[in-house]
Amino acid sequence: MIPAMQKRTTTSILKQIKLEIEKVPEAALFSHVSPDGDCLGSMLALGIALEGLGKRVFYYNAGPLPENLNSLPGVARISMSIPEELPKTLIFVDCAEAERVNSIMTREYFQGKKVLNIDHHVSNAYFGSLNWIDPEAAATGEMIYRLIRKLGVSISKDIAINLYTAIITDTGRFSFSNTTAKSFKIAAELVKTGIDLAAINNILFERKTLSQTKLLLKALSNLEFRQGGTIAVMVLSQKDFEETGAEKNLSEGLVNYARNIENVEAAALLKEIGTKEIKVSFRSNSWLDVNRIASQFGGGGHIRASGCSLNLPLEKAKESVILALEEAINIERNN
Amino acid sequence: MIPAMQKRTTTSILKQIKLEIEKVPEAALFSHVSPDGDCLGSMLALGIALEGLGKRVFYYNAGPLPENLNSLPGVARISMSIPEELPKTLIFVDCAEAERVNSIMTREYFQGKKVLNIDHHVSNAYFGSLNWIDPEAAATGEMIYRLIRKLGVSISKDIAINLYTAIITDTGRFSFSNTTAKSFKIAAELVKTGIDLAAINNILFERKTLSQTKLLLKALSNLEFRQGGTIAVMVLSQKDFEETGAEKNLSEGLVNYARNIENVEAAALLKEIGTKEIKVSFRSNSWLDVNRIASQFGGGGHIRASGCSLNLPLEKAKESVILALEEAINIERNN
Repeated sequence: MIPAMQKRTTTSILKQIKLEIEKVPEAALFSHVSPDGDCLGSMLALGIALEGLGKRVFYYNAGPLPENLNSLPGVARISMSIPEELPKTLIFVDCAEAERVNSIMTREYFQGKKVLNIDHHVSNAYFGSLNWIDPEAAATGEMIYRLIRKLGVSISKDIAINLYTAIITDTGRFSFSNTTAKSFKIAAELVKTGIDLAAINNILFERKTLSQTKLLLKALSNLEFRQGGTIAVMVLSQKDFEETGAEKNLSEGLVNYARNIENVEAAALLKEIGTKEIKVSFRSNSWLDVNRIASQFGGGGHIRASGCSLNLPLEKAKESVILALEEAINIERNN
Repeated sequence: MIPAMQKRTTTSILKQIKLEIEKVPEAALFSHVSPDGDCLGSMLALGIALEGLGKRVFYYNAGPLPENLNSLPGVARISMSIPEELPKTLIFVDCAEAERVNSIMTREYFQGKKVLNIDHHVSNAYFGSLNWIDPEAAATGEMIYRLIRKLGVSISKDIAINLYTAIITDTGRFSFSNTTAKSFKIAAELVKTGIDLAAINNILFERKTLSQTKLLLKALSNLEFRQGGTIAVMVLSQKDFEETGAEKNLSEGLVNYARNIENVEAAALLKEIGTKEIKVSFRSNSWLDVNRIASQFGGGGHIRASGCSLNLPLEKAKESVILALEEAINIERNN
């Protein structure tokens, strides 16, 4: 689609969404499983804006909500069960597919409903009656900002905190390559409301539980290098999780400590979920295609970030992963 | 000063600085010791802009330059010695005092010179012939952006990388409370040049040497808690530095790992520089005044970040620091 056409289409869909929202007294908002700052922040910001317009709003997320999102304004209004009687208007926020909301969210829910689908994922399945999909938006929060302005609602502090959370989550504090001038322009408007950037950043990116800190210590203690420091591998055993009291999902992000070490090109974190059940995260810095490596094990992802599962004892899994990384590095180097 | 007056004054000084720069064929730029991203990025961005106007530019920093700033565009042009013959125009960037440039930078250098003083520190000593001091600017880089635009120089990628580095350094990636709508608006303009935000952020905030990573491991291993986890104390001995191969300055930021742990209010990092030479960094989260604690030991700083030196063996120093923290916490709690 040529940019001008794209722009016209967006403007037209946005207008239709605005008209739809304006005419209804209530709406149900849905966000995806394994919620992140973008889906929750976007849903809450939109909901608060709709409430400001006098509408009744139902908020759904399958939960559980990550602890660092538990203080978002309005978060207490989120329900983890879907009532039998839903409003006529369903708004999906940041969901590439309706099924991302929960496993039972099938099209039968859509009978007699108007479904508004607002998302920035290029893979969006266009499952709505109205689909506003903008892959150029770094976060769905950027689209919600635009919609709220279009609805004529002024940006309150509560809305701003939610949208700012959405944007810094999906742009990695304005560090990912998806960040655009628009991301910064919206941030400029949000900060004018007087929100506490230090507090928001602290909760999202800095504050850690004691268990998380202990788990980092374990991961660093288990760090191993291969190929003169080009490959870095971390292992977290079931025992490590038990000893630190950390939940399995708290290892998120630890693989970056390995990836960010000078001269490391490829990093892997192996996580022992159960005996013979190993989850592997791969990361690379600039030239190794770790999507291909994950694919060898039946996994996948992106060139610089991928993952897979292995049904092997931890030590065996580690050997296999190291071997695959070494081979891939050697092949790349000989090309 | 009332805001409108402030604005008029700024506009007038900025104009005078512009006129001064326009009429001279060359200038010497100075930035402060222990250079950071704001002083180097600001100096290099301004220098590149002046070169674009056909001027000869001399760049000075006392050095050494931190490794993560070694790839800033133009960094190779920075000299660590001052020639006998200096241009008539000296421009100080991000220096609260002229003496911040080096220990021998006294007013005698200023004989027959025009000194332009561009800085955002509220403590600036107004040592220049023209002083443009704007404490509202989150970074001196924001002021340099404005000056470069005023000079009619278009923002190249090299200028943008330097200014972006300046701004994210002094705003902590837009997370400190000094961040304003203006910071974001300038970032929006800079990102339009197509700079690689991921690479800049990686170099500045994420990439670590192996020694740094090992030092983090040591610091986390030595972490101790007091008062039910309200106080967290880290220790780095000379042996730790030897074993990790890390320079003493590489411990910067490690105290935040202690401060950021849930329920911790006050954190301290003790660094053994020599036998009976201990440097202490204090941090607090929300209510403890660590400036007062550092002052007890002859140090100082801010309410939430301070430091001091102790001429005690490491273990004794640790006892004293813990005692002072416990006392301060108890006093606050009983108030």
